[in-house]
Amino acid sequence: MVASHQRVAVKLRRNPALDQRCINAIRFLSVDAVQKANSGHPGAPMGAAPMAYALWDRVIKHNPRDPRWPDRDRFVLSAGHASMLLYSLLHLTGYGVSIDDIKNFRQWGSITPGHPEHGLTPGIETTTGPLGQGFANGVGMALAERMLAAQYNRPGAEIVDHYTYGIVSDGDLQEGISSEAASLAGTLKLGKLIYLYDDNDVSIDGDTSLAFNEDVGARFRAYGWQVLGPIDGLNADAVEAALKEGQGDSSRPTLIIVRTTIGYGSPNKAGKASAHGEALGVAEVELARKQLGWSYGPFEVPEDVAAHMREAVDRGASAQAAWERRLDDYRRTDPAEAAQFERDLKGELPAGWQKVVDAVHGTFDKPLATRAASGRVLVAATQVIPALAGGSADLTESTQSHVKGRPVLSAANYAGRNIHFGVREHAMAGISNGMALHGGLIPYCATFLIFSDYMRPAVRLAALASYPVIFVYTHDSIGLGEDGPTHQPIAELVALRAMPNLVVIRPADAHETVEAWKVAISRRGGPTALVLTRQALPLLANDEKWRGASRGAYVAMDSERSPEVILIATGSELNVALAAGKQLQGEGIAARVVSMPSWELFEAQPLDYRESVLPSAVRKRVAIEAAGRLGWERYVGLDGLIIGMTRYGASSPGAVNMQKFGFTPENVADQARSLVRQGKD
Amino acid sequence: MVASHQRVAVKLRRNPALDQRCINAIRFLSVDAVQKANSGHPGAPMGAAPMAYALWDRVIKHNPRDPRWPDRDRFVLSAGHASMLLYSLLHLTGYGVSIDDIKNFRQWGSITPGHPEHGLTPGIETTTGPLGQGFANGVGMALAERMLAAQYNRPGAEIVDHYTYGIVSDGDLQEGISSEAASLAGTLKLGKLIYLYDDNDVSIDGDTSLAFNEDVGARFRAYGWQVLGPIDGLNADAVEAALKEGQGDSSRPTLIIVRTTIGYGSPNKAGKASAHGEALGVAEVELARKQLGWSYGPFEVPEDVAAHMREAVDRGASAQAAWERRLDDYRRTDPAEAAQFERDLKGELPAGWQKVVDAVHGTFDKPLATRAASGRVLVAATQVIPALAGGSADLTESTQSHVKGRPVLSAANYAGRNIHFGVREHAMAGISNGMALHGGLIPYCATFLIFSDYMRPAVRLAALASYPVIFVYTHDSIGLGEDGPTHQPIAELVALRAMPNLVVIRPADAHETVEAWKVAISRRGGPTALVLTRQALPLLANDEKWRGASRGAYVAMDSERSPEVILIATGSELNVALAAGKQLQGEGIAARVVSMPSWELFEAQPLDYRESVLPSAVRKRVAIEAAGRLGWERYVGLDGLIIGMTRYGASSPGAVNMQKFGFTPENVADQARSLVRQGKD
Repeated sequence: MVASHQRVAVKLRRNPALDQRCINAIRFLSVDAVQKANSGHPGAPMGAAPMAYALWDRVIKHNPRDPRWPDRDRFVLSAGHASMLLYSLLHLTGYGVSIDDIKNFRQWGSITPGHPEHGLTPGIETTTGPLGQGFANGVGMALAERMLAAQYNRPGAEIVDHYTYGIVSDGDLQEGISSEAASLAGTLKLGKLIYLYDDNDVSIDGDTSLAFNEDVGARFRAYGWQVLGPIDGLNADAVEAALKEGQGDSSRPTLIIVRTTIGYGSPNKAGKASAHGEALGVAEVELARKQLGWSYGPFEVPEDVAAHMREAVDRGASAQAAWERRLDDYRRTDPAEAAQFERDLKGELPAGWQKVVDAVHGTFDKPLATRAASGRVLVAATQVIPALAGGSADLTESTQSHVKGRPVLSAANYAGRNIHFGVREHAMAGISNGMALHGGLIPYCATFLIFSDYMRPAVRLAALASYPVIFVYTHDSIGLGEDGPTHQPIAELVALRAMPNLVVIRPADAHETVEAWKVAISRRGGPTALVLTRQALPLLANDEKWRGASRGAYVAMDSERSPEVILIATGSELNVALAAGKQLQGEGIAARVVSMPSWELFEAQPLDYRESVLPSAVRKRVAIEAAGRLGWERYVGLDGLIIGMTRYGASSPGAVNMQKFGFTPENVADQARSLVRQGKD
Repeated sequence: MVASHQRVAVKLRRNPALDQRCINAIRFLSVDAVQKANSGHPGAPMGAAPMAYALWDRVIKHNPRDPRWPDRDRFVLSAGHASMLLYSLLHLTGYGVSIDDIKNFRQWGSITPGHPEHGLTPGIETTTGPLGQGFANGVGMALAERMLAAQYNRPGAEIVDHYTYGIVSDGDLQEGISSEAASLAGTLKLGKLIYLYDDNDVSIDGDTSLAFNEDVGARFRAYGWQVLGPIDGLNADAVEAALKEGQGDSSRPTLIIVRTTIGYGSPNKAGKASAHGEALGVAEVELARKQLGWSYGPFEVPEDVAAHMREAVDRGASAQAAWERRLDDYRRTDPAEAAQFERDLKGELPAGWQKVVDAVHGTFDKPLATRAASGRVLVAATQVIPALAGGSADLTESTQSHVKGRPVLSAANYAGRNIHFGVREHAMAGISNGMALHGGLIPYCATFLIFSDYMRPAVRLAALASYPVIFVYTHDSIGLGEDGPTHQPIAELVALRAMPNLVVIRPADAHETVEAWKVAISRRGGPTALVLTRQALPLLANDEKWRGASRGAYVAMDSERSPEVILIATGSELNVALAAGKQLQGEGIAARVVSMPSWELFEAQPLDYRESVLPSAVRKRVAIEAAGRLGWERYVGLDGLIIGMTRYGASSPGAVNMQKFGFTPENVADQARSLVRQGKD
């Protein structure tokens, strides 16, 4: 590959005028689209076009006709607001992005939205826009590549062997998530990760020196990165040379500092913040055309440019064909590994995995924290699903996310499958998203529920863009005890439930935890959050009613006659509700107890099932959950009541907290009884 | 002050044995408390005791008898899990923390919770525990000090002149928020900020090299910090010398790398992760006593240690008295400034401020985005309330948070009041929290609502610990348009509403925006989030009904007879609801329209007011809000309906989005009509 790339590069160097025309074609497709939409970001594409051209025309290994070719180089536009740069590249190099798509930039129903969206547009590797996320995604992709290479490659049979490239902006590098991800990428020596830093000295507010005076190169060297440049961003040859120098050092990630001018070519806006986030204006677009000698009309691509850029299609086909041949050889020499490799890449689960996980049910014989049950599931599941890989943000033991017997992932051992992300929740989630995007792995990552707030922007993107990541959140309530209110989640559960396409499951015991994991592993269309206790919980009766957990809610204990009152609980509060229900039944009150580990799963059930669990006619309902009350009105309405938290928690032993805040069978029974008597007096 | 401190230090150096005893007293108070609670973190206090002693005994300027003395040095324990270190220091130096308080560590109702809580315990400057937050708070405190110094100090009358110190851990430095805050602190050259880095090579998962192999010193130099050390963490004299060297460079913040051993003194746990987060065990505590030659019983403080540490009281009293004299002089020479200074420190607002803000109502004459109305309020409010200071995370124009005419804050001009935080939402919130904690300023900070997710852990702490920060969130819905789903908040509103003690206000027009700002400025017991539109909204009728916004909800349009259906809306959807209401009324349906900008304010109203707005008997209710539906069941119950979002948004013009997703008078009227007809057929 290197040799053929060099030949291409040599050829290209013979026609600098054509290079320049290609670069200007990228610029003006972007400018014209923004102008037509009268909305968008022209400045970054104008400044970054030469580096993007150097990367896409001379270096990157991809196949526009098969955007999902597993061994393609990955490209991340972390500065997602420069989306038109990427759409222009996709169009010109032959991806399924037409000129009409470009003309529909930022319009209802188009495949060219304001910021790149994975799954919507062919060739978009990740959904970016919220700054810093792409940076972390790329680290995850590069990490996944090394992990799969360590697992599958054999001498002479390198079926996993690609780079991850990205363009990152000043804004990306200011966001904390990038710092976190960069530090871990350095620690893990991800040598095939190469980022171009679009260093244009301008952010929305103006000159970056207002708020960003650091020495970025020195900072990245401190993280253990190779730092190249600064190089002239107008010089595509220099960018190409730096990219190749980056490839040459496989022992550490590379940051190439590329000095650019935002809005380059616009006589009145170049170098100014005003070029950043709005259309240049018809007159200024004309002036830019003049300044750059671009005589073509809006959306016009000269034939020589089109022909040259489309060479990517043939190059891509031949690169992919070479890989297919390697894979064929591999299938012959290592058929079992090849089968597993292909299955993992498709995201398919091995036959019989559910049986293995189900067997964990049989190991429970005494009260157990759901985090501990989760740990047991992980041990079983990873034995049958090696692609399941993950770790925690420095809470390995607490979250029970370390799989004993599996090696630790490190720069010295990419075959490790226990990942230490460090105290970096946000990057952990962004990196896990990148691993899921890469394919071949099923990432999970763990921390305390309270720290879900630290990673929320990345969890949101997983839900928005349907990344199948498993978020494991332990220490899920005031029941965690002494660490106190700083560590006790109150708003976090409802904040997670509020995200469309995130399935949140808070199991009530070890059995429900197994069922929750089965849902999480099966779910390929989006992320799942498992919410688990620190404290031990009694086991539910071994009557397999808990299989209902996978339907989101089920009747855990019913009244003999039709219920007067329904107690609805999740997680650690189900046992409280069951005890209260028994007490009420003993008093002759027809009380039903519903376990409701997952609202999302329940709401996906058919109406008749939902009605069978929560009959519309029964309006006396009590929800019990050791978290903020908000949201439970969905199930208890205006006539029920909620036993939940209305303040932050307290530092005291967990059992004391549960009692002081009213999560006792007595209090639940008292309140339910009062509710039943209401209107009877 | 420097001279007197030096004398003290010289005296201390004459008694290294006493120093050692003081250090061990700190260690064993911490160890004993953790042991008694059988919960907590002994390792950090044991390792960090010498540096803490050096700082608290020889350097820091504070008055244990007046923990709120405005010119005290601030101390931030960013590694909040080391809380016992701080409680031990507070007890020994004479703050209102008794030995019984220490014995009640981590128990219900005690003032010594698992992690330090501001407002609960005298001398705790900020609530910490979630890592990285304290780091950013300290930057905010140091920034506030410089801002007030620039405003009030006169040659020879330096009434604002203190340092901000902190102890930060490996975990703190791994969190992205610290990177963000450190970079800004470097840019702003906060020379009076000095952090001790407790560099013990161990985090919860084990050796930090697992995930944290960076060169921390080089990284901080890249941010523009002075980096001292590494120095031996057992050597209090060396720590003292480094602290003074830090003071000597007023041109940049200082990080002192202090090499320590976690759990120092514990023969079997020193240097190990097992010393971090659990009691050592009775036997190991005994072994540690032996190893460190500590012959005293649990919670026993030798008299010489007590006497020596309590010298802080006299030192503090005399330091404060000197400052009071300076302030007296200042009152004589600059009476107006002195009065303002004292008022601002107390958090009092100047007389007549509301009238000035109210006058903004009169400037509205056409449709206006609520972000634009907010910008006008800021201009007016800052003229009468100079303490109101803030900025945005690189979205100054978009959020209309820049006050024209006020200078920009920079290292060259701390008198500036427009702050450029850079693309660092999380640090922005953490720094704003620190500014609020410092006192003397009323901080506001602005970004898009979607990025509230980036700053959520800091917003949560503001609410938990009652910091009066104003969070300004613009671009509040799918109505922002073309930037697309990556930028359109769906879950964010309910996620904010879920936080106890956060007041969220989403005003429906310019007038309601003025009222919202008045609430936010008045609110001293916690943070307020203002949620504002990008797009212009029609003005509500100038009948002053909108004054009801300050009560959270009010009847914006009523039916002639008692209502059959109530439409409830917030923000940009109120106009939609009003138009729908008119249509329904035209059809003879008794429709009421309620504007409900703030759930929290409404729920704080007396029952009769709430009943007057939302009569219990009227069950046909329709909530309309261009955000996720979750939570609105609180007001519409099981018999109403919610017109909201059930998916992420779309990239298209805002007006198109509003129409496609059903936020039109026609759709609202249709759905409300169907609801009214239900049960009538």
